[in-house]
Amino acid sequence: MNTSLDGIFRPKSIAVIGASTKKGAIGREILHNLIEGEFNGKVFPVNPKATVIHSIKCYSTILDVPDAVDLAIIITPRDHVKSILEQCGEKGVKGVVVITAGFKEIGEEGAKKELELVEVIKRYGMRMVGPNCFGVLNTDPEYSMNATFSKTMPIPGMVGIMSQSGALGEAILDYANSINLGFSMFVSVGNKADISGNDLLAYWEDDPNTSLILLYLENFGDPRRFTKIARSITRKKPIVAVKAGRTAAGAAAISSHTGVLAGLDVGAEAIFEQCGVLRVATVDELFDVALAFINQPVPKGDRIAVITNAGGPGILATDAVESVGLKMAKFEKKTEEYLRKNLLPIAAVKNPVDVIAAGGPESYRVAVDAVFSDKNVDGVIVIFVPPVVVDHRAVINAIVETIEKHKNDKPVLGCFMSEAAEIAGSEQMAKHKIPIYTFPESAARAMWTMVRHQRWRDRPEGKIVEYNIDKKKAQRIITKAIKAKKENILGEEALDILEAYGIKMAKSIKVKTPKELKEAAKKLSFPVVLKIDDPTISHKTDVGGVITDLRTQSELEDAFKTMKKRFGRKGKSFSGVIVQQMVRGGVETIIGMHDDPSFGPLMMFGLGGIYVEVMKDVSFKVHPLTDYDAEEIIKSVKGYPLLTGFRGYPAVNIKILQETILRLSQLVTDFPVLKSFDVNPFIVTSEASQSKAVDARFVIELVWKDVNLSQATRIVE
Amino acid sequence: MNTSLDGIFRPKSIAVIGASTKKGAIGREILHNLIEGEFNGKVFPVNPKATVIHSIKCYSTILDVPDAVDLAIIITPRDHVKSILEQCGEKGVKGVVVITAGFKEIGEEGAKKELELVEVIKRYGMRMVGPNCFGVLNTDPEYSMNATFSKTMPIPGMVGIMSQSGALGEAILDYANSINLGFSMFVSVGNKADISGNDLLAYWEDDPNTSLILLYLENFGDPRRFTKIARSITRKKPIVAVKAGRTAAGAAAISSHTGVLAGLDVGAEAIFEQCGVLRVATVDELFDVALAFINQPVPKGDRIAVITNAGGPGILATDAVESVGLKMAKFEKKTEEYLRKNLLPIAAVKNPVDVIAAGGPESYRVAVDAVFSDKNVDGVIVIFVPPVVVDHRAVINAIVETIEKHKNDKPVLGCFMSEAAEIAGSEQMAKHKIPIYTFPESAARAMWTMVRHQRWRDRPEGKIVEYNIDKKKAQRIITKAIKAKKENILGEEALDILEAYGIKMAKSIKVKTPKELKEAAKKLSFPVVLKIDDPTISHKTDVGGVITDLRTQSELEDAFKTMKKRFGRKGKSFSGVIVQQMVRGGVETIIGMHDDPSFGPLMMFGLGGIYVEVMKDVSFKVHPLTDYDAEEIIKSVKGYPLLTGFRGYPAVNIKILQETILRLSQLVTDFPVLKSFDVNPFIVTSEASQSKAVDARFVIELVWKDVNLSQATRIVE
Repeated sequence: MNTSLDGIFRPKSIAVIGASTKKGAIGREILHNLIEGEFNGKVFPVNPKATVIHSIKCYSTILDVPDAVDLAIIITPRDHVKSILEQCGEKGVKGVVVITAGFKEIGEEGAKKELELVEVIKRYGMRMVGPNCFGVLNTDPEYSMNATFSKTMPIPGMVGIMSQSGALGEAILDYANSINLGFSMFVSVGNKADISGNDLLAYWEDDPNTSLILLYLENFGDPRRFTKIARSITRKKPIVAVKAGRTAAGAAAISSHTGVLAGLDVGAEAIFEQCGVLRVATVDELFDVALAFINQPVPKGDRIAVITNAGGPGILATDAVESVGLKMAKFEKKTEEYLRKNLLPIAAVKNPVDVIAAGGPESYRVAVDAVFSDKNVDGVIVIFVPPVVVDHRAVINAIVETIEKHKNDKPVLGCFMSEAAEIAGSEQMAKHKIPIYTFPESAARAMWTMVRHQRWRDRPEGKIVEYNIDKKKAQRIITKAIKAKKENILGEEALDILEAYGIKMAKSIKVKTPKELKEAAKKLSFPVVLKIDDPTISHKTDVGGVITDLRTQSELEDAFKTMKKRFGRKGKSFSGVIVQQMVRGGVETIIGMHDDPSFGPLMMFGLGGIYVEVMKDVSFKVHPLTDYDAEEIIKSVKGYPLLTGFRGYPAVNIKILQETILRLSQLVTDFPVLKSFDVNPFIVTSEASQSKAVDARFVIELVWKDVNLSQATRIVE
Repeated sequence: MNTSLDGIFRPKSIAVIGASTKKGAIGREILHNLIEGEFNGKVFPVNPKATVIHSIKCYSTILDVPDAVDLAIIITPRDHVKSILEQCGEKGVKGVVVITAGFKEIGEEGAKKELELVEVIKRYGMRMVGPNCFGVLNTDPEYSMNATFSKTMPIPGMVGIMSQSGALGEAILDYANSINLGFSMFVSVGNKADISGNDLLAYWEDDPNTSLILLYLENFGDPRRFTKIARSITRKKPIVAVKAGRTAAGAAAISSHTGVLAGLDVGAEAIFEQCGVLRVATVDELFDVALAFINQPVPKGDRIAVITNAGGPGILATDAVESVGLKMAKFEKKTEEYLRKNLLPIAAVKNPVDVIAAGGPESYRVAVDAVFSDKNVDGVIVIFVPPVVVDHRAVINAIVETIEKHKNDKPVLGCFMSEAAEIAGSEQMAKHKIPIYTFPESAARAMWTMVRHQRWRDRPEGKIVEYNIDKKKAQRIITKAIKAKKENILGEEALDILEAYGIKMAKSIKVKTPKELKEAAKKLSFPVVLKIDDPTISHKTDVGGVITDLRTQSELEDAFKTMKKRFGRKGKSFSGVIVQQMVRGGVETIIGMHDDPSFGPLMMFGLGGIYVEVMKDVSFKVHPLTDYDAEEIIKSVKGYPLLTGFRGYPAVNIKILQETILRLSQLVTDFPVLKSFDVNPFIVTSEASQSKAVDARFVIELVWKDVNLSQATRIVE
């Protein structure tokens, strides 16, 4: 087991430095919470201005404490924190939690002070949570430590939760209590100067007290490490996350808040997906999902049965089930027969099962029994709207007893659309670990998130493929560009890089004169495409620099004249054109990469042209891609049916598309100097050998401009 | 004022027929609710087996009641209901509410019995709610009538609510109470045998006690009447609706439930949009929105300010604001200056304003004051996460007082992310009519729905345009098809219908022989298109029946040979081809119509080909379209940028597209016999005169097959 953070979470003794006698002050409330929560060890208040706080002897400095101290909670004014840390170091403290604010979150001056703290703790080998945080807690009875200033006493449970927002911490503890959700540990990470979310994930990976991890994130400190750790954890236990800053304005709010450059949301989305972290949109959804995971088994599939005693809610549940992505189960014949025989005559026996308002405990017993026995059902949502004529306690009993009878691991979520019944039912249901939701939509969403987790666990891990390529050749071209301080690699050189990585290109010949044009035409077969070959033009189509589908010699010659007229003027010498074999009968795709400052290289795939530009029908994955990722990035665009054969058009060769993406992923691995590229279009046809890149453009990382050439080229080598 | 339903909602005396002495029985609970609610009139229990119920003298039949009776509530066994209604008629009762179930909802036999009830009430001129319903209530103190069997006593208020699900009725009353939302009237309409949702809408249109209408719908009885009534109401007061059966499975659940053929959801969506009804996805959203409308003014625009004392929730709110469709307000310079001067030094003064945790009542006063004074702010969301060091009562006071000071009609929604503060705050906030939500997402959604309402009220009403067309010509073609019992009108005939309605077509010539082909080519200019002309083929492209972009005589001749080979075999005589002028440089669109059994004709617009088939990028409107609808149907497809000029392509003539849609809408008005059509593609270019239909297909309503020909053609005339 990972013990790296035991100094923080498993202390034998705690000093509260900046403890206060003033009720309501943070320094008093933390001390109070430690005592109130009956921390299983010694607590030492530290404050030079007091001799006793909360009935406990108080010390002037931590150095005066006669016993060893494992953990120090620091609530002193900002400018004292550094020297306090020095004292902690001298005292031999293992971990510190710095509640005090006024560091990186307020700007440059604070950031400088924060670095000083880090320097001290590194020097003494201590670990630190914060600064600018809400505290930590560990409900394990062996420690029973509530070192937060929360007004809410947490319930012990199996959820580990990390919040990047201190204020949200209070709201989280409060809300969790109201729905009876218990925590193993809670950490408000604050500015993450030392201990990061990633450290916590690693710490919780094999923690037997933590079966579910919840995250509230505003940014990723080290996305590559996050991916690695999360990928491994999510095979064992679910991680559910809210990532704030989904929209552009939200992301801007973050950067003014924490001073961290926020990444594109598409990067966050890709990271979560590729490491099996279940992202949810809102904090209440986070808790709906947590209730389901903590109390119920994960469904083996997505086929859901709904039981109701009222039509309306049954329809709402059906809508919700289908619209989140689940399926309504199609019952076995015997199930319907059994229901028909044993429910009231006008009950509905297809899914959703409607036992009708008059159907009391016995009907629920029958319905629950039937759907739990049905092989086509993976999970169950039980709705109960208490009618005036039915005793709701008896119905709840019947539901609970019948579920208990079936030990077959199907999850069941309750939906009681009435406050009275909810309150009456919740205790009993909670005892039997059946979560209750007020509306069917919440239940369906929670079920869906469990299914997503199951799918992730069933998904092949995938592997990074390595192709036999000509790295040297690409290196020569890129080195040359760096030496020439050329940011863009276009035209023939760009296509040469592709060739080096084993990607086929449409045959093309550079020509400047009509005579060369004639020669070129002989080497190609019609139809051909004519393109302007000017390194200063990056969007050729926009300026009329591409003429396609030229079918005869005379059409080609006319096109050449047009190009010469268009681009040969204004004192510029005519830079020539490229005559290219036209690739017919394929589908245009785009394969690209963008090196995101927060997430590193993001690979992109989409259908070419208008699909990308107008419909924004593209998908992203974080580099490097496994073979499975390459499959998924293709499948996840909306226009995917265009690739699998559509209205008489032949299906294209998906394998070559996948291979091309993986070869480009390898290129990205080999050359960190690449800032972005577009292979656009890559035309994929039904034949691998006929699928070809037609144009490409590589951009070199700007930063290399400032280093000296030998440095830059060395990085390429 | 509409008084048509006063017999139901404004009675002076009520008979409860089937009243019961048994606690828990519906017949007892309704009587109890009338008494408990202190109905402002006389109540007469009717039951032949009792002499007194709930301390009130009981009568054997309604005919024995000595006084006049306005309203009868009927809870007797199903097979007695008809004779009870006869007695009510004799007695001179004005309205009846039939609670009893077992009618249309259980199948054919019940439906027959339901028709018998309708016959009786029509004969006596009575009005009826139900059967199979939960009852009605009117909280107006002049009546104070709770004629439901709800366990919850409703709070009086300004919301009129109609539920098509009885069971949901209980849940609705219960949930509304829990959030302190009051009703003017509540109606569970049951099977809607007589009184429909539309009748209620009409009744509430000018009801001064009802300022907001909420609907829970499972189907539309008469969508055309709904559209007309709702369009008029929504200019005066908002209507918010949950329509169940959004997904295919949900819709299937409805039809087994109420035996009504459910419409496509796209029809419901279009109807709501075109008559300004605000659709929301879930029942809890319905209430979130109701709280906002009932308590706050509607915002004049979509620019929202967020005030918070904690970074995390501020980011969540920003995300929520932007992702629902609102905008984060950009403050005036003076606002930021004022905030910078008067808030704590490290507060964030851009939107979202973060007064930080240490910012107490004074900071909230400053922030609320500033954003309410800012001209760039249309609505405000105030978040408050109570920190331990701040007295939350004082903060709530400061917020409320500052808002009171500004009488400038900007809506404000609260978000208190803590249960304790919520409870403490809610009373005070409720007094000042400020709704409080637990999570920022709910507040943002409610605000957005108010903005949608405002936009609808600002939207021009639009008008139906009439063009000068040749109806007779279209009539001849359609009559001929009906006489020939031909369901499909294709090819030349289809294009002739378009021509009759003033829609330009690509010039085309029918040819059968190589000689004719030569003649035809002379009349057209290259490039041309060749299409198979076989009335038995409806998807020509799928079978290789279209060859485009033929540029020379020899290409045309080759194509003709290919066609002849492809379609002239298998004993069939070659039916010939159409040579058509190719329309160049335009955008392919599709304009279609589908006559939906529930909603009537739905007009569709989309970008042609792959956009329709794969991307499903189309939009629908309910026929008939106003000029404004025609504008909107075009703008609402995702590919719209392709029409307004995209990467160097010229913008197309949107006006001609709009006109074509309106001409086709007129065609639908003129010929109800049309079941569907596709004008596909209609190629729109930058020139109106060059924008042309290339192909079309009309389908005649199948039902006309069964009537005799003169009848059918008469309908066409």
